[in-house]
Formats: sequence, structure tokens, C-alpha cells
Amino acid sequence: MRLKVIRVHYAVMKGEFERVLQSRGMGKEDAELSARLLADTSLEGVYTHGAHRFPTLIDLIDRGRIDIHARAQRLSAHGSLERWDGMGGVGNLNAHRAMGRAIELARLHTVGVVALRNTNHWMRAGSYGIMAAEAGCIGLLWTNTIALMSPWGGVETKVGNNPLVVAIPSKEGIILVDMALSLFSYGKMETYARSGRALPVIGGWDEEGALTDDAGAILESRRPLPTGLWKGTSLAIVLDLMAAALSGGLTTYDLTQSKEERGVSQVFVAIDLASFDDRSEIERRISATLADLEATTPLEEGEAVRWPAQRRLAIREENLRLGIPTDEAIWKQILAL
Amino acid sequence: MRLKVIRVHYAVMKGEFERVLQSRGMGKEDAELSARLLADTSLEGVYTHGAHRFPTLIDLIDRGRIDIHARAQRLSAHGSLERWDGMGGVGNLNAHRAMGRAIELARLHTVGVVALRNTNHWMRAGSYGIMAAEAGCIGLLWTNTIALMSPWGGVETKVGNNPLVVAIPSKEGIILVDMALSLFSYGKMETYARSGRALPVIGGWDEEGALTDDAGAILESRRPLPTGLWKGTSLAIVLDLMAAALSGGLTTYDLTQSKEERGVSQVFVAIDLASFDDRSEIERRISATLADLEATTPLEEGEAVRWPAQRRLAIREENLRLGIPTDEAIWKQILAL
Repeated sequence: MRLKVIRVHYAVMKGEFERVLQSRGMGKEDAELSARLLADTSLEGVYTHGAHRFPTLIDLIDRGRIDIHARAQRLSAHGSLERWDGMGGVGNLNAHRAMGRAIELARLHTVGVVALRNTNHWMRAGSYGIMAAEAGCIGLLWTNTIALMSPWGGVETKVGNNPLVVAIPSKEGIILVDMALSLFSYGKMETYARSGRALPVIGGWDEEGALTDDAGAILESRRPLPTGLWKGTSLAIVLDLMAAALSGGLTTYDLTQSKEERGVSQVFVAIDLASFDDRSEIERRISATLADLEATTPLEEGEAVRWPAQRRLAIREENLRLGIPTDEAIWKQILAL
Repeated sequence: MRLKVIRVHYAVMKGEFERVLQSRGMGKEDAELSARLLADTSLEGVYTHGAHRFPTLIDLIDRGRIDIHARAQRLSAHGSLERWDGMGGVGNLNAHRAMGRAIELARLHTVGVVALRNTNHWMRAGSYGIMAAEAGCIGLLWTNTIALMSPWGGVETKVGNNPLVVAIPSKEGIILVDMALSLFSYGKMETYARSGRALPVIGGWDEEGALTDDAGAILESRRPLPTGLWKGTSLAIVLDLMAAALSGGLTTYDLTQSKEERGVSQVFVAIDLASFDDRSEIERRISATLADLEATTPLEEGEAVRWPAQRRLAIREENLRLGIPTDEAIWKQILAL
């Protein structure tokens, strides 16, 4: 199967998201913010978590799985850490509020943490890292998920792939790592499966337990390879337990008791760099590292070695100019919502 | 080559470490603590970072690369975060002091962070995670290193393998992840190389750029596979830059300008769980997850699926009873120091 990809202008995409969200009863201001976060995601090239996920979001709202009117509320304050309850509301609005509060706490204590329970899929994890970095903070955040991987050495799917984000501000742009702890995220595997292409490396096991690069077969078995094999499931397990412990929320085990992911636990950390008197020295050191990475001899001629998210602003600029590459079938689906 | 492994009793091993450290002029109390941290490392089965690394530590002290009399000192306080200078002192003593202070800060602010510059190899990273968990805190810590991996897609060795630790207290024992961001740590590869065994999976590239499971060839090329391929070097890069920015210390790029690793940057985070009023509920949730993981059907009959560091206390108990398995050649080397 070949995909037809069209270019959709940013303002048009954002406008459609706003229209649909408002048609479901979301207030104007919330709809604007939620639509902006989603459209920015596609704009910056993370197509799997912007427009391509929007129909799923609306489906969850239409089936009453996400409460479009609920918003995160503070439960308790513990010095530099606060616990918040997402009230089953919209994931990206809750995450935006949580990181906003973590940044405020970081202004007071240098380190600010918001642990958020009972929330929903935050769409692009990186959005809230970028938010911290734009505020001059290091951002560190993660979420748990429903079970999406097998514990290393085991058969059943029991461990979340618990995406992890680190964002660091720099003169050269935001250095951003946004990674699921399965080697390929489910969104990425869906893209490969839709286009009929093989994964670039072995990505998991099929239903018969054979290793495969067939994304569709892995989506069926729900047994992707963890990032770093045995290390990936170990890291995923402790991220899950930390998120649940700090927020007082559900673990992957709890979430997996129902078939649909609902009420996840998330942690948002902001570390404010403003009180350090050597900020120009820090910038100089970061610049030297980035320049050194860019100067690496590539393994394959014609390729380039890049630092994490180096091309983010260039992709943003190109898509702003030419329109955002979007699967035409999905775009038609959105127009009909 | 086959190794001869002997069993050395804990008290004997710790006593030898103390004797050697004191013979180099270290005070009695410091020598006792440093020796205990090293002997506990071997006792708990992390042979690569206890006795097997001791001769290297003494060599660095003898060549004046580590100042045996210097100790970490506080540089500045920023609310819940403090910056410390390791003064080029002994890595495990500095790290122990830094995590101790992070725990004190966590008692005050729930989250406590010590960013430590100008320190040396902390031996077993997990030691300081265990310390936090034994104090009722979640521990999160990492270090940068000299360049030990190639950035993904590139040839030269430019990225540290920057070990990362997460420790969580639980009724079932401390859940502990202690992982280098190369798929195999250099210590692990040295063990394989010494014994002449192949790595269990492909672990890196040889000097000719071919993928290999020959640990010796990877130690020569200094091009191990990252944990999670492209994801591993990205995560290593941001851990490095965070450690340098928060501590005001050196990056992997800076460290690599000299051929010997000296003056690394480390971050110690403790999060105190004491102020949460739902601690028994948190414990219950963690127990349910661990029980569920243990109940996983193993891929290979006769094997068991375990949670991270599940066997730590059992290994400790066995080695306390029978003596600690130690490479005889290394033990003889230690006796002669």
C-alpha cells in the first residue's frame, strides 16, 4: 500500500483541530491551546503524535473516556514537589498545566517537580520539555503507559514503554531527547505498517515468537524489542514505579487491568538555570560539545552526524513555508469529524 | 584462557582494601568507608566494579591522578540544589558525601539535588542509589565519563557511556537499575575479554568497522553499541550536558582532551517519600507490580523473569557465607599492593 501525502498549512491544521475540539464542547481558550500543541507537533515533524493521532483523541472524547471539561488540580504541596490530580481530563492540557507549575516551583526552589496522577495520553511528550527549555530550565519528564512490552526474558506483555524526555536550552537551539522505551514507538510502528515498509532494524517478535522487522506483526503480538534489550525493560519498570509512587497514581499493572489506557501517572521536573552565575561558561561548554558532535566523520558518506533534535527548527521552518506533510486519508477523516 | 576464581571472605577483602588505602596515607575512617563501599560491591555480585577495579584505583592514586586527601566541598546553595566541588578526590568518598547531602536536602524540600564537579570515578554507581533507598528515598543519579562510544552514525569515539542509576525502596527489597549507556559496560567487556568468551549478543564494532561479539576487539576500537542504538547516544549526550551544566563542571568533550578520565561531573537526586500520607498504598501498588513480573512465563524453560536487582540480597547472603568469587590473579595483585 502506498500512502498519499499532502501538505496542509499550519493555520489550516490548527484551525481544524480547534473547530473539532470546540464542536465537542471544549472552551475556546482550551481548544486553542490543545490545537496549538497538536499542530506544533506535526509542524516540527513528529507526525505520529500530531494530526495522525487526532482522530483517536476525538474518538476517546466521543466515547466519554476523556472528560473534556476536567482539568488538573493540586492535591498537596511538599516543598519543591507538588502532587496534582488530572481528573481524567485532556492529556495535553493537563501536561501543559503541570509543566507550567513545575517551572514556577523551579523559580522558587531551583528544582520543581509536579507529579500528576489520573491523567491521559499527553500526545507529544517533547512538547513539555520544549516548554521548560523555552523558560530557561532543564526539563525532565516521563509518563507510564498501559502494558506495551514483555519484561526481558518473558512472554506476556506487562511493561509500559513509558516515554522519557530530557530538554536542555542552548544557544544553538533546544537539545531534546524524546524516547519511548520500546526501540520503536507504537506510533512509529503504525507509520511503517501503514506504508508497508520494513523497519530499518529488527523491532520485536511476531505472534510465533520469531524476531521480525515487520511492524504490523509486532503491533499484533504487542512484543516490541525494548530500547537496549534487558536494560530497556528495567528502566521502564523503575520509571513506572517512580511515577506511581510520586503521584500516588496508577502503575502500568493497574492500568492494564482495563483494556484501554486511562488515568496514567506522569512526572514533570524543571531545573532553573537562572541562579547559576556561570551561565555563559555553561553555554560555551555546551556549544563546544555540539560543534564537536557535528564535526564527526559519518559512517555513510553523504550522511551527517547530528545532536538530538538539531533539525527541529529547520523542519519547523520548512513545514511552515510548504505546509505540513499529512497522510491524506487521515486529513479527510479529520475534516469529517 | 581460563580464569581461576577463588572465594575471598568479605572481612578479608575489606581488610585488604583498608590496609592498602591506609598504606597510601588515607585516614582510618575514610579508608574504612571506601573499603566497605568496594567490598560491598563485590559482595553483591558486581565483581567488575569492586575488587577487579581496585588495582586501577591504587594505580591512579600512586600516579597522583587522584588526591587521596581531598574531599568534596560545598560551593553554593540554590534552594533544593547545591553545587559541590570534588577537589579531585577519591570518587567513592565524594559520591558518598554528595548523596548523603542530597538526602539531607530531600528531608527539607522533598527533592534534594547535589551537583558535583571535579570528582573521580565513583566505582559502583548503584552504591549511592542503595544509600538513598535505605534512607527511604528514591535515588536518581548519573555521571559523565571520558569518551567511550561513537555518536550514532559516526566514526570517532566522542560520547561518554554515562552510567545512570535509579533506586526505589520497597518491602521486597531495593529495586535498582544501574546501567551504562553502552550496551555492555567496559568492565563487563573486560571480564568477557579476560575469559575469552564471546558476548551474548553483538556488542559493537571492531577496528575495521565490522559488528562483532568479540569484547577484546571492541575494547580496542572503543566503539561499543549504545544501549538502544540511536537512542543510547542521545540519552548519553543529554546526561553529560545536564551534569556539566548543573555542577558547572567538565563535559565528556572537555574530559577527553586529556587521555585519562579525571574531574568528572555527577548529579545526585534524592526524593524523600516520608511526607506522603499514602505510603502503604504506594507499597501495595509496588508489591503488585513485582509479583506480576515474577509471575511472567519465561521465554526459556527453567529460566525466571526477575525485577531489577531482585537477587541482590540473595547474592549478598551467599557470598557472605561462601566468600566472594574473585579472579585469583587480581587477588594476588591486591595482596602485593
